[in-house]
Amino acid sequence: MVVLFRVIGFRNVALRWTLTGKVYLVGAGPGSAKLLTLRALEVLESADVVFHDDLVSDEVLEMIPARTAVFNVGKRCGVKKITQEDIQRKMISAAQNGQTVVRLKGGDPVIFGRTREEIRALRDANIEFEIVPGITAATAAAAGAEIPLTDRDQSATLVIESNHRCGGRPSHARRTKLAGDATLVFYMPGRDLANLKQELGKRGLHENTPCLMVSQAARPKQKIVRTCLRDLSSFAALPAPSVVIVGAVASEARVDEWIMPVDATEVVDVYEAGESPVASETQPIAL
Amino acid sequence: MVVLFRVIGFRNVALRWTLTGKVYLVGAGPGSAKLLTLRALEVLESADVVFHDDLVSDEVLEMIPARTAVFNVGKRCGVKKITQEDIQRKMISAAQNGQTVVRLKGGDPVIFGRTREEIRALRDANIEFEIVPGITAATAAAAGAEIPLTDRDQSATLVIESNHRCGGRPSHARRTKLAGDATLVFYMPGRDLANLKQELGKRGLHENTPCLMVSQAARPKQKIVRTCLRDLSSFAALPAPSVVIVGAVASEARVDEWIMPVDATEVVDVYEAGESPVASETQPIAL
Repeated sequence: MVVLFRVIGFRNVALRWTLTGKVYLVGAGPGSAKLLTLRALEVLESADVVFHDDLVSDEVLEMIPARTAVFNVGKRCGVKKITQEDIQRKMISAAQNGQTVVRLKGGDPVIFGRTREEIRALRDANIEFEIVPGITAATAAAAGAEIPLTDRDQSATLVIESNHRCGGRPSHARRTKLAGDATLVFYMPGRDLANLKQELGKRGLHENTPCLMVSQAARPKQKIVRTCLRDLSSFAALPAPSVVIVGAVASEARVDEWIMPVDATEVVDVYEAGESPVASETQPIAL
Repeated sequence: MVVLFRVIGFRNVALRWTLTGKVYLVGAGPGSAKLLTLRALEVLESADVVFHDDLVSDEVLEMIPARTAVFNVGKRCGVKKITQEDIQRKMISAAQNGQTVVRLKGGDPVIFGRTREEIRALRDANIEFEIVPGITAATAAAAGAEIPLTDRDQSATLVIESNHRCGGRPSHARRTKLAGDATLVFYMPGRDLANLKQELGKRGLHENTPCLMVSQAARPKQKIVRTCLRDLSSFAALPAPSVVIVGAVASEARVDEWIMPVDATEVVDVYEAGESPVASETQPIAL
């Protein structure tokens, strides 16, 4: 009798275990469906339900089978359709009902994806999960502009930051100071580029440092515009999603448009002389 | 007659134009063939010739059709089978012979891929080319360790650097100083981790900062080991390719092994108190 109960008990546990679904935190890449990984496509094709961000492109969403339930859980600054906690509750509840759940995020889930909250919630609920990486905006933008982000002569360091402020930290005061040979990529640069320009100046960058805005990288309307730090705010009108690439590597980009700096010859001269256009280490950096 | 010559001339030009091949600089990702993008696979399947790096995994190489000519042009510190210039000459010559050429690089071609030299050579030779992004080691390693690289509480900045010195800059003296809330990912950490530890201390990181080594990310023998900056050199024996992730985000990683720091309770205490384990901005940073 004891043995019988044990068998039934074990079966119930095993049944419940196999009925619990799995959650995939999946990178949708920058926009082109061709930049999905094979694993991301495989997982999307097996999903019962997909919860996706606003920035996931239509082209990627079209890869989801028609039978799959698809929910836009995108959050925009100031307009929250659904809270982060609600997203987590929905994912967990679907998985507990035995469904295969995909949480689809623009770019890569581990870079500016609010993934930590979701990982913690999934761990707390004992739900099995897997993170499927995606092509992040920085490398897609660089590929479109035909430049490297690191280079043995031009850039030993790649720094990725967000210029997105809503709900985030109020100040950039504690941010990493910049060496002369760093490439910076700013995600979600928004419209406050005058402030960004000022901040980068304080962090040690010369106003002649080349800047690139790549708008809608790897999408049909991709646009690449170049200027220098002094004229950074001229980028403000380009449509999202976009990134700003700052550093010497930007000087060799394939561009659709070049916003001429106030004194263009100055920039050209610096490069032709083979000098670094950024402040030297010995200069005082005001912070 | 003049018209006839013109027509023939135009045809010859058109014929030569269509006969020139194209070069694809393709990211092979971290190792798993499933982390190739759809575009990378499409391009590999159309290639006449593939020139690949040493770090491209066998699993990815097996995706190349049998009819394709495949050359390992990998370069290792001190053992150069073929020079960078020779690689470029071979790519250009194959494209000029009308072939579709894939230059296959581990990870993403724009991050530590020596891509700038190849872009310049292709531009100089008037060869059409396209950069196909790949999953870079940093995000694959973070996905494996189940941690984000940025987080609104733990990390506002992602810094990617290489610890590879051969042929590169001799000193890290000019490197970007670090804010307390940066995540650092070191590519090609090699075996000189005692030096890296010392450098990071000088750049402002507390010796209790969590460190993660992810060896062979997204490969069958992936191994994730955690320690703190003080004991960083204990990582030295893990097999390449590997990355070292340094920063508060590493504290929540799923690990295969945890190398206990000399005084483990100290690290745990710092985290339980919710304090930052890194040096504050007001402390003097020796550089």
